[in-house]
Order: sequence, then structure tokens, then C-alpha cells
Amino acid sequence: MGLFSKDIETMDDLFVHQLRDIYYAEAQILKALPKMVDKASNADLRNGFSEHLEQTRNHVARLEEIFDMLDLDAEGVDCPAIDGILEEADDVSGEVEDKRVLDAALIAAAQAVEHYEITRYGTLMAWAEEAGREDCARLLKQTLDEERAADKKLTQIAESEVNLKAA
Amino acid sequence: MGLFSKDIETMDDLFVHQLRDIYYAEAQILKALPKMVDKASNADLRNGFSEHLEQTRNHVARLEEIFDMLDLDAEGVDCPAIDGILEEADDVSGEVEDKRVLDAALIAAAQAVEHYEITRYGTLMAWAEEAGREDCARLLKQTLDEERAADKKLTQIAESEVNLKAA
Repeated sequence: MGLFSKDIETMDDLFVHQLRDIYYAEAQILKALPKMVDKASNADLRNGFSEHLEQTRNHVARLEEIFDMLDLDAEGVDCPAIDGILEEADDVSGEVEDKRVLDAALIAAAQAVEHYEITRYGTLMAWAEEAGREDCARLLKQTLDEERAADKKLTQIAESEVNLKAA
Repeated sequence: MGLFSKDIETMDDLFVHQLRDIYYAEAQILKALPKMVDKASNADLRNGFSEHLEQTRNHVARLEEIFDMLDLDAEGVDCPAIDGILEEADDVSGEVEDKRVLDAALIAAAQAVEHYEITRYGTLMAWAEEAGREDCARLLKQTLDEERAADKKLTQIAESEVNLKAA
């Protein structure tokens, strides 16, 4: 980061910055998910988190493919947003004893993570399309669709199994 | 926060915690929006941020109404998630010189904020409904609808005016 110069000059720079941001974020999510699997009690929720852990490995691989397409090294930049979201998830879930209330708290935390990813991948996909990089946009869309599906699945588990039992 | 006890015992406790979380978040967003208005160049984007500043004041008032309905003092709790999202918005926009690239960065940052609010209000509304508090759910839904509309409007501004010019 330049002290006297601005480091992001073009849309390309901004795209790469955001790509590095989500690459760091996915790495943090990879570390957080096994803890969420451990904390969850509801079987569908545990399975959902485990399945999303597998998907997240694919998301990281897709980002590495995009870095490769752009002839860039795959590296992250600090992402205070995901750090904050995961810190909050940890803080809140650490305050809950009851298993069903904890499941509800974990779902809310996971949906905050999903929404962060949905907004970032949505933006990246739009920027890739406008830059004429359909190859990158296609990969970003695959991940975006999976994040949206994961968010929807969490809502279903919450509505059908967790919230009513915890209420 | 208890050292030897867990502070969130019931769904009611979790609901109130999340209400205080978004109350703090809205207060931080109220502080951040005027800076975003100042930084934006595109007229529709500036107007959009200004309009959302007005809406955010209403969102705060609605939360205060809900605290009142529940006979609780309106107070916030630390929300590392919104702090992180706003810190990142500040970091990135501070690195951009070009006005159109800055507008694109501001839109991406604002959409991350909107998505955080969408997930939180969505969860709160679902919990209020399941607890039979239709009075709270109705107010939460009004804000949720406005956040979703604000997110959609940002996408429209990005697609029709900002990204193509900045590319």
C-alpha cells in the first residue's frame, strides 16, 4: 500500500484486489467450518456444513484457476470484513449453551458468511463480464450459484427443523 | 459477558442480542454514509447514498420501536462484522484515485453492507414470526424490503452507469 500513491488505479486493479480479498476470505472460512461442524447438533445442519466445507475447497481451486488465467500469483489480501464476521460468529456461539439455540445462532452466523460471499462473487462476476472475461465470469458464477444454494438450504433447515424446536 | 456462565440461554436472548447487534450496526452505517456521499461522483450514486441515509434513520427509529414493544432499553452491542465491513470499505476506497473506479468500489462496499443487513433482518424477521411477535416482524420486514430495494438499485446504477465507464 503506497504512502504517497494510490494503489488501485484501474478497474483491473480493483478486480484483482477483490479477487485477493475473497481468496483470503475463503481460506478463513475453510478454517472456521470444521469448528461449526463440531458445534452443530442438528444432523442436517452438520451435514450441510460438512458439504459446504467440500464446496469451499472447490471455490478456492476455482479462484486459483482464475489467478492462473490472469497470469497472477494466487495470493490473498487482508479482509477485515470476513475477519469481523467470523469473530462475531465465534463470540455469539461461545455465549450459547442450549443446543437448539446454538444451532439457530450457527445458522445465522453461516448466513452472514454466505451473504458476504454472495455480494463479493456477484460483484466480481459483473466486473469480469464487463471486462469481456467470460472465462473468469463462468467460474465465478458457478461459485455464486453454490453460495446462493447454500444460503437457501440454511433457511430451509432453520425454518423446518431448528427455530421452532428452539423457540 | 459471563466468565463462567453463558449469557444467551434462550431464543429470546438470542433475538435480543441480534437486535442489539443490528442497532449498533445501523449507528455505524449512519456515520459512514455521509463519507460515502462525499466520495461518490456519479449523481445517481450520490443521490442513492443520500436517500439511504434518510432510510437508515428510519431503520434506527423502527428498531427503537421494537425495543419499546419488548420493554427493553434501546442499546447496541459490539458488532465486529459491521466494523470489519466498514473498515474494509474505507481501506479500499482510500486506495482509489480515479473517480469512476472509486464509484465502482463504493458500490461494491455499499452492497456488502446491504447484504449484511439483509441477512440480519431476514433472520430477525423469521425469529420474530416464530415467536408469534407479528408486531415486531412487520417492522423488521419493512426495513428488510428497503435494504433489498437499496441493494437492487446499487446493482442497477453499477450496470447502467458506473462499471462500463470505469472499465
